[in-house]
Amino acid sequence: MNVLVVGANGQIGKHLVHLLHQSNEHHVRAMVRSEEQVKQLEENGIEAVQGNLEGTVDEIAKAANGCDAIVFTAGSGGHTGADKTLLIDLDGAVKTMEAAKKAQISRYIMVSAFQAHNRENWSEAIKPYYVAKHYADKMLVQSNLDYTIIRPGGLTNESGTGKIAVGENVQRSTIPREDVARTIVACLQENKTIKHSFDLVSGDVPISEAVKKLN
Amino acid sequence: MNVLVVGANGQIGKHLVHLLHQSNEHHVRAMVRSEEQVKQLEENGIEAVQGNLEGTVDEIAKAANGCDAIVFTAGSGGHTGADKTLLIDLDGAVKTMEAAKKAQISRYIMVSAFQAHNRENWSEAIKPYYVAKHYADKMLVQSNLDYTIIRPGGLTNESGTGKIAVGENVQRSTIPREDVARTIVACLQENKTIKHSFDLVSGDVPISEAVKKLN
Repeated sequence: MNVLVVGANGQIGKHLVHLLHQSNEHHVRAMVRSEEQVKQLEENGIEAVQGNLEGTVDEIAKAANGCDAIVFTAGSGGHTGADKTLLIDLDGAVKTMEAAKKAQISRYIMVSAFQAHNRENWSEAIKPYYVAKHYADKMLVQSNLDYTIIRPGGLTNESGTGKIAVGENVQRSTIPREDVARTIVACLQENKTIKHSFDLVSGDVPISEAVKKLN
Repeated sequence: MNVLVVGANGQIGKHLVHLLHQSNEHHVRAMVRSEEQVKQLEENGIEAVQGNLEGTVDEIAKAANGCDAIVFTAGSGGHTGADKTLLIDLDGAVKTMEAAKKAQISRYIMVSAFQAHNRENWSEAIKPYYVAKHYADKMLVQSNLDYTIIRPGGLTNESGTGKIAVGENVQRSTIPREDVARTIVACLQENKTIKHSFDLVSGDVPISEAVKKLN
């Protein structure tokens, strides 16, 4: 698959670009904000394109042109202002969905947030961020895209274990960013994950096996 | 009709409560934030209920219990922080939609913002507010509620003229808050406005006539 990674310079994004670049089955195009980031990626032999989530849908569609899938892993993580949360995590995300349709891309993977579907479990400290993620997810479910929504628990920079737990509601826990990236790749390879949304934390089931068993 | 006004203490809300209270065809229940506001309204012979858009759907459903319609005219108007915009104008609004379903209320009127449906026409200064209104409107359209979405132009405190212009896209202009409130009442009385969304500014067509001609 030809995969556009939106938020390629983010912490999960970097892992994901690396994995896709190494894979024999996929080709990656990294969407990043600045020309400088484009240059850096290209110097490492990675296709890169400049794209701005505060720009137009047409611009994003152009950046996505020719891809088979979009992975959205951009975002503020709740630490920027709520204005950017609205503009990037919600409207920016929905623009990429509209761009997917425009560019006739059907596969779409969203990196959401743990329990974003359950209002009562939203952390008080970053509630506005949860609101944005919740409605971006809702818009995706109501789109006609072949979506998968991944809601990872607390992100760590530890090395991945390759083993996870997934489900509609799993116990709050952590997961290395590397394993989130691996799970995204596994979802791209497993069509059973289409139209599924799930919480994701570290666990004891190998990733490829875990995503196959989603229901 | 028995109408719950959410945001009854707002500037449009006050006009609306007054109009509904005076009408022979409707009964109004004002939802406000504080106990003190409830008391003040009750002293004026108006039914009032305390409700918090940052509370639970169940609480709002309880406040709405027995009503036939909900009018949402709460909100920050873009001048509070973007965090409150997310919590009130978007998630708070959607909670009232969920509460409507829970309380088996089918009629729902949303006071939105001029051109909230067209991203390219969003004012740069209050763009996060527009994002919140846009997605609240989207969620309403995708609900099964009998909605009407009213997108008024620049709000003024002048006396109403009783004459308006409505349409999918009308030229940017202003409208007295009093006329917005009158238009809401006219929509409650005209079922042809169900499943319609429209821009609203001052014009030269009497309100009841204008809302009848929506298509």
